[in-house]
Amino acid sequence: MSDYQAPLRDIRFILEELAGLGDIGRLPGCGEATPDLVSVIHEEAGKFASGVLAPLNPVGDRQGCRLEGERVIMAEGWREAYRQFVAAGWVGLSLPTEHGGQGMPKIVSTPVAEMWSSANMAFAMLPHLNVGEVEALALAASEEIKARYLSRLASGEWGGTMNLTEAQAGSDLSTIRTRAEAAPDGSGSYHLFGQKIFISYGEHDLTENIIHLVLARMPDAPPGIRGISLFLVPKFLVEADGSLAARNDVRCIALEHKLGIHGSPTCTMSYGDNGGAVGYLVGKPNRGLETMFVMMNDARFGVGLQGIALGEVAYQKALSFARERVQGRDAVSGRDGVAIISHPDVRRMLLTMRAKVMAPRMLAYVASGWFDSMRHHPDAAVAERYRRYVDLLMPVVKAWSTELGNEVAGMAIQIHGGMGFVEETGIAQHFRDARVITIYEGTTGIQANDLVGRKILREGGESLRLLIAEMRGVAGELASRDQLAVLGPALVRDLDTLEQTLEWILANGRERQAEVLAGAVPFLHLLGTVCGSWQMARAGLAAHARLDADDGDTEYLEGIVDLVHFYFGHLAPMASGLTSIVMEGGASVVKPGEAIFG
Amino acid sequence: MSDYQAPLRDIRFILEELAGLGDIGRLPGCGEATPDLVSVIHEEAGKFASGVLAPLNPVGDRQGCRLEGERVIMAEGWREAYRQFVAAGWVGLSLPTEHGGQGMPKIVSTPVAEMWSSANMAFAMLPHLNVGEVEALALAASEEIKARYLSRLASGEWGGTMNLTEAQAGSDLSTIRTRAEAAPDGSGSYHLFGQKIFISYGEHDLTENIIHLVLARMPDAPPGIRGISLFLVPKFLVEADGSLAARNDVRCIALEHKLGIHGSPTCTMSYGDNGGAVGYLVGKPNRGLETMFVMMNDARFGVGLQGIALGEVAYQKALSFARERVQGRDAVSGRDGVAIISHPDVRRMLLTMRAKVMAPRMLAYVASGWFDSMRHHPDAAVAERYRRYVDLLMPVVKAWSTELGNEVAGMAIQIHGGMGFVEETGIAQHFRDARVITIYEGTTGIQANDLVGRKILREGGESLRLLIAEMRGVAGELASRDQLAVLGPALVRDLDTLEQTLEWILANGRERQAEVLAGAVPFLHLLGTVCGSWQMARAGLAAHARLDADDGDTEYLEGIVDLVHFYFGHLAPMASGLTSIVMEGGASVVKPGEAIFG
Repeated sequence: MSDYQAPLRDIRFILEELAGLGDIGRLPGCGEATPDLVSVIHEEAGKFASGVLAPLNPVGDRQGCRLEGERVIMAEGWREAYRQFVAAGWVGLSLPTEHGGQGMPKIVSTPVAEMWSSANMAFAMLPHLNVGEVEALALAASEEIKARYLSRLASGEWGGTMNLTEAQAGSDLSTIRTRAEAAPDGSGSYHLFGQKIFISYGEHDLTENIIHLVLARMPDAPPGIRGISLFLVPKFLVEADGSLAARNDVRCIALEHKLGIHGSPTCTMSYGDNGGAVGYLVGKPNRGLETMFVMMNDARFGVGLQGIALGEVAYQKALSFARERVQGRDAVSGRDGVAIISHPDVRRMLLTMRAKVMAPRMLAYVASGWFDSMRHHPDAAVAERYRRYVDLLMPVVKAWSTELGNEVAGMAIQIHGGMGFVEETGIAQHFRDARVITIYEGTTGIQANDLVGRKILREGGESLRLLIAEMRGVAGELASRDQLAVLGPALVRDLDTLEQTLEWILANGRERQAEVLAGAVPFLHLLGTVCGSWQMARAGLAAHARLDADDGDTEYLEGIVDLVHFYFGHLAPMASGLTSIVMEGGASVVKPGEAIFG
Repeated sequence: MSDYQAPLRDIRFILEELAGLGDIGRLPGCGEATPDLVSVIHEEAGKFASGVLAPLNPVGDRQGCRLEGERVIMAEGWREAYRQFVAAGWVGLSLPTEHGGQGMPKIVSTPVAEMWSSANMAFAMLPHLNVGEVEALALAASEEIKARYLSRLASGEWGGTMNLTEAQAGSDLSTIRTRAEAAPDGSGSYHLFGQKIFISYGEHDLTENIIHLVLARMPDAPPGIRGISLFLVPKFLVEADGSLAARNDVRCIALEHKLGIHGSPTCTMSYGDNGGAVGYLVGKPNRGLETMFVMMNDARFGVGLQGIALGEVAYQKALSFARERVQGRDAVSGRDGVAIISHPDVRRMLLTMRAKVMAPRMLAYVASGWFDSMRHHPDAAVAERYRRYVDLLMPVVKAWSTELGNEVAGMAIQIHGGMGFVEETGIAQHFRDARVITIYEGTTGIQANDLVGRKILREGGESLRLLIAEMRGVAGELASRDQLAVLGPALVRDLDTLEQTLEWILANGRERQAEVLAGAVPFLHLLGTVCGSWQMARAGLAAHARLDADDGDTEYLEGIVDLVHFYFGHLAPMASGLTSIVMEGGASVVKPGEAIFG
């Protein structure tokens, strides 16, 4: 069993050839992202991921977390690893320098975040929470809160959490009951009362303080989602000089026993059992969900990366196993005792895995460049176009990447055969860990409803039409490249299919709404698949251009061209079936009576 | 969370309308299988499954098995449950009466086996092993062995095991090293030496004796699979009068720590550490694999049923959860606080699950009738046709059912959302348990190679052509039924596609063998999907005929018709993509150099 190695060559190829790293480095405020520095950062992150985080991943899985009184004890070695992680400045890599971050564009931190999750997903969740919390506070909190909390969160000195879910309020946050009352001392602070569940890193022993962001309802708030406010609730109150004061009235009362990510504590948090947890309003009253929703694209993007990350590490281990495990006879040559990678079906599975990692990775890295352009591009029209793409495709990056990540993790077990079912082999952990990523930060169904409802129907399909036009340009370019020309008609056919499906959705979105929504997930897979074809086609064109220029790396680039052909041969063909499900399958979902359930 | 309830209505509908229960009951030797008695058997089995086995399933998962010295201690309650199971005569339900079984045809025991695995798959593995062992011994063992062992195995008084795998010999049994030497006492018995891994129920405390079937090599045996013999090795030697004698030199030296089926002990067995384990040759020397292969169809069939069984229980729990869990707003009516089954995507998932349980169940139950006809039909030509169908489709029943079972178990977690990821909910166990079924008794890849190589190429596609002709007959019948007429052209199109793919395989099987094998698994899925369409079409026709006859059960029958339409809307459309992968994707798998792996 080999260990995880950061896929630096793939990262560099995608960033430079597809995601526009060079252009991003020329945007205002992104000047430090020179190709050389970026390479150094990625190499160093890769070493930290392989050397420090990956060895602790099975330890976290085996030992889990333990609740002792009010304290949560993390697995052995995790405190020291986190200390090193903070000392190296990794937490704030892409946070603004004014808040204590390193100020790198998202295109740089994206592959790094992927590496952390490949090496140790349960560990990587904590810094990811910090980044989300800093971005939320930077956007909506008062200057006083920012001054007191931001830099300690950006450095990782303190931990962050997001407290949304309650037992009765999961995907639907409108029914949140945690309440916040103005503190009787007139200080402007609040007292919070209620219970939150599924709170990742709600309690742990990695940091001296934990800063909770909590959704709660004020006494006179209107019902539903327009009556929810956002509060900051520190575990230990913080004095003006930054020193820690009294222990706040919030505690972890239980840990979940989960299928995966055992190293990450999933806490039930109780607020206000002893008079009220002191909290501070973040942003405007009753507008808490807006702040949350602004963060949502980013959080979803991060979970999408987890899908790619788990796929990558599962693929690496399966590839290594398949090259070492000797079993059976070569079907063509008849040679006995070959490594199983010689068997055509094992090759097919490995290539399917690689394609299902690389295609969503291309899309995600390209999207990370869109994030940067949307924030930093001086031409407002360009920035707006990328904002549209980000909005439109974030549900795809989240849901498509995580669904594929699960498939890849499952295939990795399959390649390991009986050994894959034995926990000591280690591959089963990735399979178990992966199972949460299509659920948290919005299930695949929620993402698909968002895509079809908010991102397409609400704006009459304008952004997707824009994107399809851009993809058609790439299809046109394929014709000019001998080795890729055969893929041009395939991409055009898929784009026609996609466009036709889009028009069907627009035409039926109002009158046959339920039928359209019944096709939302298949449509999301369709859009993901076609976006994959688009990015793979771009990868093929870029690789060919580099091969023509003969600037080295020939073997790798030829491998990319081969992978592009594999994608068009094995993943792209599923688009036609998905279209048919969307356009013809809706009635059979929504019309039948209860008897269909048996 | 509801408990498992045997799907008696579905079972009865499929057996009577699709699998020909009435005709089977008229075959010689099957006369006891009257509809009334069969119903009673299935009701009683359902009660035992729900009442006794299902409650012990999470107990087995949590407690697992424990090795103490040479003993393996099973989870609490399992001994008593097994005692009841044996007392009720369930083990030998479809074993011949001359060996101590109940003599019921396979069409009767098939739904019962499904129930056991739905309720408690880890438990159900033991009686399944006994059945396989009795069939192997009945086929190949000497009269003396039969007299001494068969009835105790058929009753379940003693446990059975199959010892095939060694560390270096998994899918490829040709490299087996366990050796068998003639006993020096000239008794005709052998002494076995070696180690076997992954032996289910190799040791446990449920029975007073355990009878191992072991593949081993004699000193002068030719190399490879033509030098492997089969031996019976009892844990305790058995006197001629049936009483137990000395403890044999075989013991469990380790248990695997597995992803799932924790309740089932997976043992490393050591033979001959103290002078040799006494064994008895079963069948002819060096022909052990032949006996094994004869059993193979049956064992594969049993694992296929596990896929259906786990899918069924996962579906039941997801359906129950979706009906109870209130979350979100109805997209169409705008009503707040609806059960999540109201959401179109949740309905789509539930129906996908139901279709992915019912379609392979229809095929498996129909195949169980073929087994009976092939054994008992007085017309040799008819029996031969069913033997062909069984041979052809057994890899599909095994691999397609288990792949779908995994998908269904994964969807059940998805429907449970965050609760699905918490172990206490119970649904995660089915997901973990399911992960082994596409691996053991031959991986999906092995099944697909068997399908394409042995079952199609070797006989020039004759059996599949016969099957396609039979399916075309059903497509023709659809036209005559108004409500189903629209499905006729869809089935014809899929059959054309299947036939075209078959011809491509036959045309290229020799010269482009590796490319053809690279498409073996997609082809298996294609064949499964089309067989599903075929059986669903038959179900639709049967339901319509019953509705026309107006003989009751209207609601259920209309539900079946709705499900047929759902299958054609959501599962059948994937056939075209699979065909394209088979016929056009092979080169992109086998031709690229190593660089494609990154």
